[in-house]
Amino acid sequence: MASYLERVHELPVLPQVVPGEIRAALPASAPDEPEPFSAILDDLDAVLLPGLTHSQSPRWFAYFAITGSEPGILAELLIAGLNQLGILWRTSPALQELEEVTLDWLAQLFGLPAGVHGHIEDTASTSTLVALAAARAARPGARVVVCSEHAHSSVDKAAKLLELELRKVPVDDEFRLRPDLLDLDGVCAAIATIGTTSSTSVDPVETMAKRCEQEGVWFHVDAAYAGAAAVCPELRHHFTGWERADSIVVNPHKWLGVPIDCSTLWTQRPEVFRDTFSLVPEYLRVDEEVGSLSEYTQVLGRRFRALKLWAVLRCYGRSGLEARIREHVRLAALFEAWVRDDDRWEVVAPRHFSLVCFRLRASDEENERLLERVNASGEVYLSHTKLAGAYALRLAIGNFRTTEDDVRLAWDVLNREAVRA
Amino acid sequence: MASYLERVHELPVLPQVVPGEIRAALPASAPDEPEPFSAILDDLDAVLLPGLTHSQSPRWFAYFAITGSEPGILAELLIAGLNQLGILWRTSPALQELEEVTLDWLAQLFGLPAGVHGHIEDTASTSTLVALAAARAARPGARVVVCSEHAHSSVDKAAKLLELELRKVPVDDEFRLRPDLLDLDGVCAAIATIGTTSSTSVDPVETMAKRCEQEGVWFHVDAAYAGAAAVCPELRHHFTGWERADSIVVNPHKWLGVPIDCSTLWTQRPEVFRDTFSLVPEYLRVDEEVGSLSEYTQVLGRRFRALKLWAVLRCYGRSGLEARIREHVRLAALFEAWVRDDDRWEVVAPRHFSLVCFRLRASDEENERLLERVNASGEVYLSHTKLAGAYALRLAIGNFRTTEDDVRLAWDVLNREAVRA
Repeated sequence: MASYLERVHELPVLPQVVPGEIRAALPASAPDEPEPFSAILDDLDAVLLPGLTHSQSPRWFAYFAITGSEPGILAELLIAGLNQLGILWRTSPALQELEEVTLDWLAQLFGLPAGVHGHIEDTASTSTLVALAAARAARPGARVVVCSEHAHSSVDKAAKLLELELRKVPVDDEFRLRPDLLDLDGVCAAIATIGTTSSTSVDPVETMAKRCEQEGVWFHVDAAYAGAAAVCPELRHHFTGWERADSIVVNPHKWLGVPIDCSTLWTQRPEVFRDTFSLVPEYLRVDEEVGSLSEYTQVLGRRFRALKLWAVLRCYGRSGLEARIREHVRLAALFEAWVRDDDRWEVVAPRHFSLVCFRLRASDEENERLLERVNASGEVYLSHTKLAGAYALRLAIGNFRTTEDDVRLAWDVLNREAVRA
Repeated sequence: MASYLERVHELPVLPQVVPGEIRAALPASAPDEPEPFSAILDDLDAVLLPGLTHSQSPRWFAYFAITGSEPGILAELLIAGLNQLGILWRTSPALQELEEVTLDWLAQLFGLPAGVHGHIEDTASTSTLVALAAARAARPGARVVVCSEHAHSSVDKAAKLLELELRKVPVDDEFRLRPDLLDLDGVCAAIATIGTTSSTSVDPVETMAKRCEQEGVWFHVDAAYAGAAAVCPELRHHFTGWERADSIVVNPHKWLGVPIDCSTLWTQRPEVFRDTFSLVPEYLRVDEEVGSLSEYTQVLGRRFRALKLWAVLRCYGRSGLEARIREHVRLAALFEAWVRDDDRWEVVAPRHFSLVCFRLRASDEENERLLERVNASGEVYLSHTKLAGAYALRLAIGNFRTTEDDVRLAWDVLNREAVRA
């Protein structure tokens, strides 16, 4: 793994395989007899490697860039080796108490109110689902969720599973939810996104918080990606008002160096989560005065994810995380300036964090083909979105290994391929 | 981790800490400056170790016994190091295709029909939830789920989240759902458990499968623990009829040596799952002919769990897994014989797999105090349940490191503490 991480920047970021190719190279059945672990490592190199998409590469700029950092990787080894199972406090006091402590640490780093209740989920899909389930329980009969048309698809999926009607509010020309169009009648939950997936736009959090308070509506903040930026004082202004939310999701497996999976969910109304999810059958009933974090969510058995969050927070420290996020924002601003300074290109959304949305001044089709050529080169990997109906390219910076040279490479590849249009 | 696993049998299985003790030993805030990883390891030993409950101990006999095996532990390091993110096929072709392949391998080992569609979830809580969501979608208007009164609490939680009415059917004197009391009117899903959590009883699977087919009801089989036993031909008879299920859950993180988390979910109706969960937003839309496994479940981003399942299946082989499960069943039969041969004790449920339910011929209170003394010793860890209204002790064998000596120790500790009653 150490040598993989040393050379990952040399590998094609997006693999050059066709569907079924990896599958065809693997045996159709499990072996009858044991094989050594070295056979796994050999096949990892020979068979699987060509089918990996390298999120660890400093040249991954697609979707959101992530990092499985070294302390996080080593911590996953410890997690698996200890194999702790959080069901009750007693099935792993260390798991539960370390989770409480690390979530407190993180809340402090983010400037969240003291005493806010946090726990870890696998992904934001689950965090959003359980938050909306709590919201549904908190306001019986109200069966509508509102969010902007730029909210993440996990909101659609959660609303569908919970059989809640989802009303999408139009956005303004900076892709922010328009509060003048926000109708909270019959609504159980309103969702503000800080850092939307398309463009990292920021909804009017404080205005929405006030409206929700006035009308008794659960206010949920989705800061799955951008939440990490709250560790930087100069970026904290984007978060004004999130401290008033009933629930907040931030994913440390996105921009904080924790390997997938680690999504943190905070609430100021833990009793609603507990009422919604707590259920203790006889075989789990023990004379324990302390509750379990499993009572605050859908899944019974918890992994020891707190251990990797703990390792990352300690091995980088507040200053280390702050420095990395600040550098990513600097690199994104630099790339944005290059785009702005070149008449062939245009920036198509405000840049708040480390994502730049841009396009060639050409047709959607030409931009789409450009992206295909760029990604087919394997040198860098970018993704796209649609903004105000137009195709937009996205360059997301967030990998801890990304340097200015990598961003420069992306710009060079884009310009090289643009000429071929 | 290697030295931990070598000496884990010497550690008190259940920790001797009080609530808050671990928390109090940890700093109240994250450090400002980076610390070395060695500080994590030091504190793991000094601060966290006293608060761990050792599921890796061969003397863990509580709930169900599990194993984070060496190949699975090393694979978790690889999973974190590669940090693959399964969203679309292209975000990791290797992740998706290895998951398909290993699930095929496992289906073959279990004797499931060729072509059954499988994917991996985190835990059985999620597998059950998504299976019941599919069942709800498959029969609009039917809002009732039926299962035995011994079904797992995750069924209760899933039904609650999905706002389905849960009807619990009484069991016979061997703790099996009574099919004569099974009413499928208005029912969207019926659940049979192969290996209930309380006693590993086996519901009448084939009878239920037929009834469900006749009445167009989704038939779900929960074999989260016992499913692994299907690798042994001599135990396969317990599974007759499960091949007719619409969905089946088995957790390789329970009895197959895979570290937490790994729950496998199979279905013969993948199109229903896809209709229920598929939702592709613009920023994930690409010209791909191949679907993603994310379209079959609630969570968007998948971990590379297939890698640890692959490592375990290869490093043990079919024969190795079969041998371990067979040995656990032999040890449980041995313990059962000891209990039956001693007039002070009684067996209180049929033993089908590797769990023995038993009690001292004494009051519930005496049995409860006995269990407290046994667990307080730290030498072994057992749990309890209630069967037909009476308190029962449970000895679950399933850790790969457990030997006859460990089972003998449990019996000796039980007898020693019983004398103190």
